[in-house]
Amino acid sequence: MDDSETSPLINRRPHSVINQSSEEDEDDSENKLNYTTEKVLSGEYESLDYDNCENELYEMEEKKKSVRDIVVIEMLRWLVMLFVGVLTGLVASLIDYCVIKSTDLKFSIIKKYIDKCVDDQCMEIPLFVWAGINGGLVFVAAVLTACFEPVAAGSGIPQIKCYLNGVKVPHVVRLKTIVVKVIGVISSVAGGLIIGKEGPMIHSGAVIAAGISQGRSDTFRKFDLRIFEFFRADTEKRDFVAGGAAAGVSAAFGAPVGGVLFSLEEGASFWNQALAWRIFFASMMSTFTLNVIQSYIKGHPWDLSYPGLFNFGNFDTTSYSAFEIPIFILMGVLGGLFGALFNQFNYILTKFRRRYINKGRDRVLEAMVVAIITATVGFVSLYFNNNCTPMIHDQDPNTVQFYCNDGQYSSTASILFQSPEDSVKSLFHDPKGTYAPATLIVYCLCVFLLACWTYGLYVPSGLFIPGLLIGATWGRLVGISLNYIFPDAEWVDFGKYSLIGAAAQLGGIVRMTISLTVIIMEATGNITFGLPIMIVLIVAKWVGDIFNEGIYDMHIHIQGVPILGWEPSSVLTNLSAREVMSHPVSVFRMRESVGRIMEVLQNEMHNGFPVVENFDPDIQSSSEEEEMSFGTYRGIILRSQLLVLLKQRIYGDNLTAKLTTKDFRDAYPKFTPVRQIHISQYEREHFEINLEPYMNPAAYCITDNSLYPRIFKLFRALGLRHLVVVDKHHQVVGMVTRKDLARYKVTQKLWKVSMEELLISTK
Amino acid sequence: MDDSETSPLINRRPHSVINQSSEEDEDDSENKLNYTTEKVLSGEYESLDYDNCENELYEMEEKKKSVRDIVVIEMLRWLVMLFVGVLTGLVASLIDYCVIKSTDLKFSIIKKYIDKCVDDQCMEIPLFVWAGINGGLVFVAAVLTACFEPVAAGSGIPQIKCYLNGVKVPHVVRLKTIVVKVIGVISSVAGGLIIGKEGPMIHSGAVIAAGISQGRSDTFRKFDLRIFEFFRADTEKRDFVAGGAAAGVSAAFGAPVGGVLFSLEEGASFWNQALAWRIFFASMMSTFTLNVIQSYIKGHPWDLSYPGLFNFGNFDTTSYSAFEIPIFILMGVLGGLFGALFNQFNYILTKFRRRYINKGRDRVLEAMVVAIITATVGFVSLYFNNNCTPMIHDQDPNTVQFYCNDGQYSSTASILFQSPEDSVKSLFHDPKGTYAPATLIVYCLCVFLLACWTYGLYVPSGLFIPGLLIGATWGRLVGISLNYIFPDAEWVDFGKYSLIGAAAQLGGIVRMTISLTVIIMEATGNITFGLPIMIVLIVAKWVGDIFNEGIYDMHIHIQGVPILGWEPSSVLTNLSAREVMSHPVSVFRMRESVGRIMEVLQNEMHNGFPVVENFDPDIQSSSEEEEMSFGTYRGIILRSQLLVLLKQRIYGDNLTAKLTTKDFRDAYPKFTPVRQIHISQYEREHFEINLEPYMNPAAYCITDNSLYPRIFKLFRALGLRHLVVVDKHHQVVGMVTRKDLARYKVTQKLWKVSMEELLISTK
Repeated sequence: MDDSETSPLINRRPHSVINQSSEEDEDDSENKLNYTTEKVLSGEYESLDYDNCENELYEMEEKKKSVRDIVVIEMLRWLVMLFVGVLTGLVASLIDYCVIKSTDLKFSIIKKYIDKCVDDQCMEIPLFVWAGINGGLVFVAAVLTACFEPVAAGSGIPQIKCYLNGVKVPHVVRLKTIVVKVIGVISSVAGGLIIGKEGPMIHSGAVIAAGISQGRSDTFRKFDLRIFEFFRADTEKRDFVAGGAAAGVSAAFGAPVGGVLFSLEEGASFWNQALAWRIFFASMMSTFTLNVIQSYIKGHPWDLSYPGLFNFGNFDTTSYSAFEIPIFILMGVLGGLFGALFNQFNYILTKFRRRYINKGRDRVLEAMVVAIITATVGFVSLYFNNNCTPMIHDQDPNTVQFYCNDGQYSSTASILFQSPEDSVKSLFHDPKGTYAPATLIVYCLCVFLLACWTYGLYVPSGLFIPGLLIGATWGRLVGISLNYIFPDAEWVDFGKYSLIGAAAQLGGIVRMTISLTVIIMEATGNITFGLPIMIVLIVAKWVGDIFNEGIYDMHIHIQGVPILGWEPSSVLTNLSAREVMSHPVSVFRMRESVGRIMEVLQNEMHNGFPVVENFDPDIQSSSEEEEMSFGTYRGIILRSQLLVLLKQRIYGDNLTAKLTTKDFRDAYPKFTPVRQIHISQYEREHFEINLEPYMNPAAYCITDNSLYPRIFKLFRALGLRHLVVVDKHHQVVGMVTRKDLARYKVTQKLWKVSMEELLISTK
Repeated sequence: MDDSETSPLINRRPHSVINQSSEEDEDDSENKLNYTTEKVLSGEYESLDYDNCENELYEMEEKKKSVRDIVVIEMLRWLVMLFVGVLTGLVASLIDYCVIKSTDLKFSIIKKYIDKCVDDQCMEIPLFVWAGINGGLVFVAAVLTACFEPVAAGSGIPQIKCYLNGVKVPHVVRLKTIVVKVIGVISSVAGGLIIGKEGPMIHSGAVIAAGISQGRSDTFRKFDLRIFEFFRADTEKRDFVAGGAAAGVSAAFGAPVGGVLFSLEEGASFWNQALAWRIFFASMMSTFTLNVIQSYIKGHPWDLSYPGLFNFGNFDTTSYSAFEIPIFILMGVLGGLFGALFNQFNYILTKFRRRYINKGRDRVLEAMVVAIITATVGFVSLYFNNNCTPMIHDQDPNTVQFYCNDGQYSSTASILFQSPEDSVKSLFHDPKGTYAPATLIVYCLCVFLLACWTYGLYVPSGLFIPGLLIGATWGRLVGISLNYIFPDAEWVDFGKYSLIGAAAQLGGIVRMTISLTVIIMEATGNITFGLPIMIVLIVAKWVGDIFNEGIYDMHIHIQGVPILGWEPSSVLTNLSAREVMSHPVSVFRMRESVGRIMEVLQNEMHNGFPVVENFDPDIQSSSEEEEMSFGTYRGIILRSQLLVLLKQRIYGDNLTAKLTTKDFRDAYPKFTPVRQIHISQYEREHFEINLEPYMNPAAYCITDNSLYPRIFKLFRALGLRHLVVVDKHHQVVGMVTRKDLARYKVTQKLWKVSMEELLISTK
């Protein structure tokens, strides 16, 4: 894994690249070896391992465990979820508070300059101030992200999705990541980028959960609370991360049920009711904590009516008629089209970025350019498209008079002089006539292009708010058009159409289903719109899926993460284990020489090795036939276990020394790499390690005639990392890992399905 | 299975009954052989089979399948879900309409008699009329249920839960069942029993889904649409049933998200996103259909603001303060206690019923007795506890004056003279002072006892409404008490406390978690109460679980259904496959004689048999050692497959005749039993069947040292029916089925865990 000096791109078996297609589809063949395309699976990502190693040590530990221990562990799980919920709520409140305060400060400064310059004819000054402040703030965010922790860039949802799917994304749940994420998102939202803080909150929740459940930090290596030690395993950690992500959604949108569904939709393969219940608890505590903090901030302590940070507010009309459903469906189609367009632009941009903007300095520069352009575009559109509206409440402190007459205010300025989040709310709730159609069209276009450019910058940035903002704008335009066609109709409520547009656009971009419906329902605080929202989300997803995939999946695939979908594609049903598996495999005998273990670990990047009987390693290296087998299957030993055994020198005099599961758990998750373990030539040649007590003798295996769907289901349902393939004599013939399954990329566009086998890069 | 003449109670292996317990717990040993207790697993229930048989026929079919076929099948799945949603909505509307009309008619008749008799002093007449009408209606329901389709009794939720868990409950998704259920629930709700129609609606949805997806009916054997033939497999059918159940919840409560979560909570082991999406679609269509019908019935065609049949209505207060949370927690505790008490009463009653009331006649009689007593109790409590309230709206047609003065009406009468459902709404929304505390106490007590008696009667009867009704009553009492303590407090809203009480009580009885929270949230049409509802449901579940299990699980266990929980109990971690498995097993050779197949099928109740090599059946019968094995494992053949092979005489001249998967699918689900297959002695002795093309060569197997949690997870996650246990030489040593896993009953009460091994009855 660390030491291999193989070529940068390998295909681990003598397969040719299959190109099975119902129609002819050969167009991408020239890209096959292009490292910057998404046609390559990255070797950088390892799998999480959810299979319990049922070796002798485990059995010993289980036998010692009393009922009291079991109950205590169960209670600790609840306790961790409590902390996760409360802390996530606190962090979300902190982000929110800082964003609001800094945004207010920024706009009050700019407004002062504008008010002064309207009279003094010095409009360039506020422009420079605005651009300067934004540039400065975004500089902070970009430097932190690009130079200290690149994984903190973006919304974090794709990374969390991968983690819940069972892929170890490096650094994704580190303490350093959350620090960069929190400071970064505050600066970049305050810096006027068209982004939201919701995605980063979800990521923060996940990091908090991982941190608390482990009771120690990788960033500060010395810091170890030494509590919750039992939870130091992939299985337990992932459960808590699911809870943290749910708590993040819950805090961001006031949507505890939506949060649970989010975690479910992204990682349900290992779902069970008790876990769902705990995740729900974390979500609930997060909302609760946030409510309490908000009630203090707003000056009504303990009055719990602030459901979440981004609440859509109360809608005037909460009913609709059946004849509006066709309109909703059309809006869903629009959302799907605009969403697909957004994703396509972003896809091209991301490919461009991966190729040309891959140095820290360039990334910071790009972010600053976007920040300055965003400020300029805002200012210019304000200047050229000033839209004066009579003041409703006298002297509302949030209005800007700009070039308007007395008693009027600039509605263009008011939509620009607030955070994107507040703009969404304005579009939902401002009375009829606030915005001229021309303003909205220009605004929609600018926001669309800027948001598309912004997502993928090296700053923490959520995508929910930009999606909602674009949709709310054109949704309001739909409302205005309907009002034009049916001038007297009472049912044409701009807020309603704005909401539906927002849902359609967001759905078209992210293609989330049930969880998004529930999040939007909870954020509106009202059930009545449930059905229309569902309809537009379904339609938007269907329409969008014709053209491309959701933006999160797109980014995951661009990065070559070996993510497994929900179901094996139905065109892969005829692949057998023999075709899917990697072979030859390196195997160990029950008692294996230290030298050979060292050699294999140094030369192989694999993380699990079959343990066999009746196998002679010398024969393996001499023969390379297709039909060869590697001894009778007995169990699996993991690289991590071997590293611990080597480091503790469990051979020679120590051969019978019994390690306990605790020794392995203490080493989790950063096992000493093999190049840091120094073993003398004498030891290598003269000692053997007895693998039998440490290997997992019950690890699943599958016969070589099993078909792809069966292997896929076993992997997905049980969260496996390694699956040994045996022939009918129980001889090991190969090994299937996540990457072997994720290699088959099936693209379906209506009736046309094409399948190709991706290459796997070593790093 | 059909023909075995074994003793009524067998334990299929030479195990003794284990009684592993952290504390001494020996009290139930005298019940071990008592057939009427729940200490026995019933042999009557077979498992559903979700494992694809990947034999040669399947591979052939898959190879022939074009992309177009795959897309068509996918579209048909959506089509079926559309039909399921629409039909479920229609059936729910029908039930609702009939119940409302017949209830109105009944009470108008009774009211007429009462109004007359208040003056004429002939109060015995309305009592007789009331009791007579109720008795008559319930007689219809009870006769239909007890004599024609006993499985239609009760709410149907336990049965659906079992089905989704993977247990075939006989008759549960038959056309006859839905007919009895629909007519029965209309009669019994109209007959004044304290029951709801929601559970039966959920069951109806499930039956509709099973029926439509199969395109034919078992009740009318000739009726076969011959469409959707592809869906004739356990896997597909179960997915549709999950959609039907969700559609039922959605129609009953206007809770499409709650419906999806319900199906998820009950059967998520086979969950995936695409399926969730389709289930959501069915839920949505069901709500939509219902909305349209309701809008017509209420005279506002196409105005879609009637979310579900049982909507809680609008609450005045929708906010709460943090200091109310301790009150909610206490109410949760109360709900848990009352719920546990309810379940305990019902448990004793159910055991009594199973022992003494098990003839059709007695069952009908009991139902009628309850109906008459319910009417009498209502009348008597009205008579002795008349509670006069000033009329608010003059001449409201729903009020009864009874013995009250002019300008007043009897609030006791008004709560009794409506369906339980409307009573719940009255308790939620009637203004302060409507009900005297004494009325509520008496009412609560009567409803508690009657509802407890009613659940388990042989009539279709939902449990949600009774639970809500009991809770709403004592919740309102809590509100009244708080009003007494804090007379000037604005936050004391009776409706709010009534709602919280209703949630607590229902949660205490059924112990559902997320799905129930969401159902109640959707039924209130408001998100704000989400957190309090979650809190009371969590607390009610925790408190209730100290004493006993939820009522649905209780009934499932009383019936000895081999249901598998979400997780293997942590006290079972040390059981190995050798201890869990059944052995000896009957195995077949790759080419097996017709005679031996007939013999094994006639003498064995198993449904799957390992196919082996190197095995001599004569040795098996002579030796009975613990350590014996049964040949080298090659695959599994199912009883159903063997029956088809025998019936089609695939031996002798036909030996090489190739059946297709369609032949097996056509025979699904009612395969000709072996006693109806007549094969001559000559054929038995001289012919062999070649099992190799038909067996499933990739069926999962597990090594004999695997531990219980591993086996459990494999079973639960993949929906297995049979799991072959092999030793390290790949020799078959035993077989694990669902019953082998469900046999271990672990009871946890706080720190005390006891485990016992149940016996398995043959029928």
